[in-house]
Amino acid sequence: MNNHSVKNSVECWDCFELRLKGPNSGNPYVDITWNVTFHHESREVKVMGFYAGREEYAARFMPDEIGEWTYETSSDCIELNGVTGSFTCTASSSGNHGPVRVTHDERFAYADSTPYHPFGTTAYAWIHQPEELYTATLQTLKNNVFNKIRMCLLPKNYSFNAQEPELYPFEGAPQEGFDTSRFNPAFWDHLDRCIEALLKLGIEADIILFHPYDKGRWGFDVMGSKADDLYLRYAIARLSAYRNIWWAMANEYDFMKEMTMSDWDRLISIASNEDPHQHLLSIHNGTGMYEPGSIFMYDHTRPEITHCSIQHWDVTLVTEWRKQYGKPVIVDECGYEGNLPQRWGNLSAGEMTHRVWESFARGGYTTHGETYLHPQDEIWWAKGGALFGCSKDQIGFLRDIVDKAPNGLRPFSIPRDAPMMGIENEYYLYYYGQHQPGYREFELREDKEFIVDWIDTHKMTITTLETTYQGTCRIPLPGRPYFALRIRCKEE
Amino acid sequence: MNNHSVKNSVECWDCFELRLKGPNSGNPYVDITWNVTFHHESREVKVMGFYAGREEYAARFMPDEIGEWTYETSSDCIELNGVTGSFTCTASSSGNHGPVRVTHDERFAYADSTPYHPFGTTAYAWIHQPEELYTATLQTLKNNVFNKIRMCLLPKNYSFNAQEPELYPFEGAPQEGFDTSRFNPAFWDHLDRCIEALLKLGIEADIILFHPYDKGRWGFDVMGSKADDLYLRYAIARLSAYRNIWWAMANEYDFMKEMTMSDWDRLISIASNEDPHQHLLSIHNGTGMYEPGSIFMYDHTRPEITHCSIQHWDVTLVTEWRKQYGKPVIVDECGYEGNLPQRWGNLSAGEMTHRVWESFARGGYTTHGETYLHPQDEIWWAKGGALFGCSKDQIGFLRDIVDKAPNGLRPFSIPRDAPMMGIENEYYLYYYGQHQPGYREFELREDKEFIVDWIDTHKMTITTLETTYQGTCRIPLPGRPYFALRIRCKEE
Repeated sequence: MNNHSVKNSVECWDCFELRLKGPNSGNPYVDITWNVTFHHESREVKVMGFYAGREEYAARFMPDEIGEWTYETSSDCIELNGVTGSFTCTASSSGNHGPVRVTHDERFAYADSTPYHPFGTTAYAWIHQPEELYTATLQTLKNNVFNKIRMCLLPKNYSFNAQEPELYPFEGAPQEGFDTSRFNPAFWDHLDRCIEALLKLGIEADIILFHPYDKGRWGFDVMGSKADDLYLRYAIARLSAYRNIWWAMANEYDFMKEMTMSDWDRLISIASNEDPHQHLLSIHNGTGMYEPGSIFMYDHTRPEITHCSIQHWDVTLVTEWRKQYGKPVIVDECGYEGNLPQRWGNLSAGEMTHRVWESFARGGYTTHGETYLHPQDEIWWAKGGALFGCSKDQIGFLRDIVDKAPNGLRPFSIPRDAPMMGIENEYYLYYYGQHQPGYREFELREDKEFIVDWIDTHKMTITTLETTYQGTCRIPLPGRPYFALRIRCKEE
Repeated sequence: MNNHSVKNSVECWDCFELRLKGPNSGNPYVDITWNVTFHHESREVKVMGFYAGREEYAARFMPDEIGEWTYETSSDCIELNGVTGSFTCTASSSGNHGPVRVTHDERFAYADSTPYHPFGTTAYAWIHQPEELYTATLQTLKNNVFNKIRMCLLPKNYSFNAQEPELYPFEGAPQEGFDTSRFNPAFWDHLDRCIEALLKLGIEADIILFHPYDKGRWGFDVMGSKADDLYLRYAIARLSAYRNIWWAMANEYDFMKEMTMSDWDRLISIASNEDPHQHLLSIHNGTGMYEPGSIFMYDHTRPEITHCSIQHWDVTLVTEWRKQYGKPVIVDECGYEGNLPQRWGNLSAGEMTHRVWESFARGGYTTHGETYLHPQDEIWWAKGGALFGCSKDQIGFLRDIVDKAPNGLRPFSIPRDAPMMGIENEYYLYYYGQHQPGYREFELREDKEFIVDWIDTHKMTITTLETTYQGTCRIPLPGRPYFALRIRCKEE
């Protein structure tokens, strides 16, 4: 029997790893298959193992039930076959709420039922940067309120992002070419470290598996279906046991001209069928942005797609998308705060914040990004590093309001009125955007008393009105744009 | 022969009126038909006469060619039949450019080819207000830059607009009911006076003939097709000779539930076929505003419709509508600057101005309106009176820029760039809106020198850069929102 040492206790939704020594002959990424089956009472979960380099084979598993789990390996390689063991899954510690799921009522929540509202940001290639910048990025994330980050697994070749990464996911080098059937353990070890660092900060890693920003440089966007599938399965085997993983199958998938729709269908099926931990799964559009009426999106009604990850500048469409797809909606690209010459990268802070509020009030979410010109091209949206803008704080102000709201917020669809998230008779958060009413009339409950706050979403101030309101009432408003109105039932 | 005295000289595009005494028996609005045919060289134009009250029959004609015109009346009433005469049409005086037309290249221009850019405003029921308010409205128009006003012919019963008008277009009164086959001369005389006052101020009167804001009060929205046709023909006979008339067949036509689409088709055909002066003709939508993808508009491709008069809050769609309909586009309702509780009436000044600039830069136009709460409900958008907001001045600032631009501005469609109006190699006006690029790259002509201005569309300042530019160049921009960039070829 293979010698192995593992933890005998893991907390719920943490990663249990089994690591065994094994052969390094041939191509261990392809030639050897090994799986581990975990049991708990009547449950049985099978995970794919992976070759981790240095003659080590690993299998990772995220237990989701407290109690005793046993496991048994199976492999065509004798050294990896028939290994058994057990561990205890203990209650999760504070701050560990498990992975994010979609609830039956089309909202996000952690596995322990704590509501999750994505306040995402974007730093596509932050994992591909030198150590100093990597550290700076984590520091910036620590100092801000973001709880999700969109990030590419494969390196990116794009405006303001032209340097060679230090590590590649595959064996090889730009000059000699890459062997896409062999992975580079150093890269993947680094990726583990990145995801663990995010986990510590309570940040979901929205991992973009494929993207079109290669343009003939490394060839990772045109590897062919066999290599694509191998890569996807390796990513799943390697990363799925981290509870903060989300799968974004591609960014701007429709800009990858070598891929067909059936390629995407196949990859999405693999991710959905073979991810033992059933992480959130999305795919993100590129085309159709500049032609009203010709929006080109993947069929988000497919059952494998857990939520909509949409690129569009008009976030008022969140209402429509929620209705159309019956799933949570994240506008993952609506433009970024910055001053680039490119139109997608030069929104004012006020406009970025406005889009985040507008989509939130409609029951969706908009992801932050920042693209200010920088002397060393250290632009957050690409490389991470520092943030210079104002929307990060304004978004933090919104998050604070949301964190303090009662559980169970739902979007209310009110024809010809401002969008609103609330709970009937308890809590209402209206967002007025460019609208600046001088007052609004409401039908509140007669038998309750309601506290009213004016919220200046740009200046980040909350003004509580001295009067409380009940029944049919006219509530004054400041008559200035970019305000929200919060109406809270006074607790007895 | 009927005694009549008429002017023997009228300037081009002014109103020539022939007025004859005639019988008042029966219903002179219905029982008597009379027409006048005007001749100039090989031209022949037939106009409908109308009963003007006080036993007077009038016929009005707007000559459009300099020289001698003759006329001859024909009628089933002997006193109105066979009257002949002549007058001289003289050159138009300065400030009289004739009626506005649509040019072959889908722009607006006056009949003398002077470009016309609509900077419209809205005061639906201003003609129905007491004398003092009427005078205040004209004073406000005189002090501002608007060159078009949207106004209802029929009185309006709506929020902030509930008083009885002093005069009704038809004989009768609210208590006793109205006879829609008889017109009220006092009302129509007042209307003449209103249109003449606008004419003096150089303002086009965009006359809304039908609207749904009656709601059972006077019944003018449910008169039946016979009365509708009679009313329309009377309006044409009476008003068409004013060069500043535009026909807006209806406001929010689709909110008039008693009318069918074939009613609208018929009315539009009458206006198009029977208006001897062929004024601009549009119809304005109401429905479909709150459901993306379900925009419900009249078929603006119909040849009778000269331009699109659209209600929509998203003025970026101007680009699409221009393409779709091949006609000038005016977004006649996109919301109004104000602080009403109603969503359509509480845009910030900055947002109103933004929509005017955005649509202009896309080759269309957005109409101003103002809806600030007022102690006596004297809200500009309804009754006229005074303006209190800031967008009027910001729109005036744009108009000044446009007036100083060379003739021949066209919208350029630049994928993924800011919208721009310009003339190749001569003049470019880019509008950046919520976008705030730090610089932009341009390919200007090598052999010309270009002057660059930063235009702050909100603060109404123009900053001319010290450097001039030519060839491939990088032009710095202020990196703040709501700026426009003007690039002008330096004159040698």
